[in-house]
Amino acid sequence: MTSEDGFEVLIAGGGVAGLTAGLFAARAGRRTGLLLGDDIGGGHLLSVGRIEDFPGFPEGVAGFDLCPMLQEQAQDAGVEFVTSGLNALTPSDGAWTATTGDGEIRAGAVVVATGSALRELGVPGEAALRGHGVSDCATCDGPLHRGNTVAVVGGGDSALLEALELTNHVGKVLLLHRGESLGGQHTYAKRVLEHASIEVRHSTVVEEILGDTVVSGVRVKDTGTGETAEEKVTGVFVYVGLRPRTDVLRDLLALDDDGRVPTDVAMRTVLPGLFAAGDIRTESAAQAVTAAGDGATAALAAHRYLADPGRTWPVPQPRGASA
Amino acid sequence: MTSEDGFEVLIAGGGVAGLTAGLFAARAGRRTGLLLGDDIGGGHLLSVGRIEDFPGFPEGVAGFDLCPMLQEQAQDAGVEFVTSGLNALTPSDGAWTATTGDGEIRAGAVVVATGSALRELGVPGEAALRGHGVSDCATCDGPLHRGNTVAVVGGGDSALLEALELTNHVGKVLLLHRGESLGGQHTYAKRVLEHASIEVRHSTVVEEILGDTVVSGVRVKDTGTGETAEEKVTGVFVYVGLRPRTDVLRDLLALDDDGRVPTDVAMRTVLPGLFAAGDIRTESAAQAVTAAGDGATAALAAHRYLADPGRTWPVPQPRGASA
Repeated sequence: MTSEDGFEVLIAGGGVAGLTAGLFAARAGRRTGLLLGDDIGGGHLLSVGRIEDFPGFPEGVAGFDLCPMLQEQAQDAGVEFVTSGLNALTPSDGAWTATTGDGEIRAGAVVVATGSALRELGVPGEAALRGHGVSDCATCDGPLHRGNTVAVVGGGDSALLEALELTNHVGKVLLLHRGESLGGQHTYAKRVLEHASIEVRHSTVVEEILGDTVVSGVRVKDTGTGETAEEKVTGVFVYVGLRPRTDVLRDLLALDDDGRVPTDVAMRTVLPGLFAAGDIRTESAAQAVTAAGDGATAALAAHRYLADPGRTWPVPQPRGASA
Repeated sequence: MTSEDGFEVLIAGGGVAGLTAGLFAARAGRRTGLLLGDDIGGGHLLSVGRIEDFPGFPEGVAGFDLCPMLQEQAQDAGVEFVTSGLNALTPSDGAWTATTGDGEIRAGAVVVATGSALRELGVPGEAALRGHGVSDCATCDGPLHRGNTVAVVGGGDSALLEALELTNHVGKVLLLHRGESLGGQHTYAKRVLEHASIEVRHSTVVEEILGDTVVSGVRVKDTGTGETAEEKVTGVFVYVGLRPRTDVLRDLLALDDDGRVPTDVAMRTVLPGLFAAGDIRTESAAQAVTAAGDGATAALAAHRYLADPGRTWPVPQPRGASA
């Protein structure tokens, strides 16, 4: 069997949602293909040093450990991996045609689990200095700043986790956060606030990342007083939110206000045979374990759909469309 | 803090869904209580010898290992365990009052994750011989039948898994199944059909479990030919489906045709501050990982609800109520 023959279930996305969907579709006996895209085995979790809230791991598990284990499970179950991404999706004759970097692939059902991309700050210096001090991976690039001061921008779970991770490497972390209080999990926020090597600046926005060939500092503004200042840092780690990767679906169905895909409780979209799982679906809780649950749910719904494609169900509505 | 002061989030159910909900509610900083009920740490998964499809465990994980690990994680996060079950639930003054074996407990939000009970066969001999050869736990009772022939009744995932587990202990397994083909995961069905120590009888129902003080056999009927026969077995393991434990909710809201609780994609029920997770919710995929995902989703939805109780959302409909 090669991808030219098509698959019964095609999954787009090599993160936790996609890999778990693959595991369950293959175990259900379906010929299953998985488009890894640019995220070989783990999406942005790959860069997370320790996931503390995944069931079964009281000591925590690194994203770069969990994802390859899950990929091994999916492979053992019979999932075929395709190392290209999903460029377009077209319904045809009661099935789907996926346009990929490897050509067209036919599938009876498609589970889209393309996850999130980190948002950019969108300030001067960010694009030019990316890879030269601007980073989104504390475990990858933290060791480059040993003993130095670095900035983390953001106040959610990712920012807090990465700030904590950076304290293992750097001298001092400046956590620059536009809100008045940290937004992430209470457990992480408490640890950040109590950490001797982390200085939290609330109500603070970054206006520019400074440096000629490498990062030398940031210009920040206190939104309360309106005052600006320059801080010397050698690295800037940006975690200002996630953007669902749903561009490929934009012309197929109505997305919600956040750009996410409305689904019902079985991860079915409004289109027969098209399922969404993980960060990209409306009201995703955006946790590793909820992505995994979504993936399994979507795969088993796809399995049932293939057994009885004519069955209908209540159509999920974009958020805000109902009372 | 004791349970007399009440909790911000009260969870009913000590299985995977409930424990994961506890983990996430406590990590979100909520005072969290968990009613373990009769299932200290794991519900019916506790008796599963090997869960093969839980992400992060390529070699599989025993239910009796996963559930205590998860209980440890929940406890470390600050969940308080109450060793009694949920007898009734009453809305009062914008919060909930739970009636438990330990008295009344107040909570701002409640996550019901009471899971499933195994269905009984409902044939003569079953109730009288339970614990005397009639069992629903292969890992517990398999060793009592070393070298003997035992019957497994059912054709779904639980029946298949338990039949495979029993082959580690007994001489022969008779798998008695009313359908014409096995209904469980393809991976398990294939292994059962190919196993030298398992004999599968399709289109077969059990009419009576035989024995005076201990099981000595079963009377079976072939539904194709109408013929009956007696088979000598020393044990009968019954896995004929699951019944959602939702009796306590029956007077509060409309259940679906299967007795499950309708929810939206964030595990919210029609009642403000009441959430459902795992096997008991409509269209649950009834897997360990989907229960875990549901639990995390419900806990984070409860956390958001407590921050803004007045917010409304589209009301989930019982299955069949929409077009």
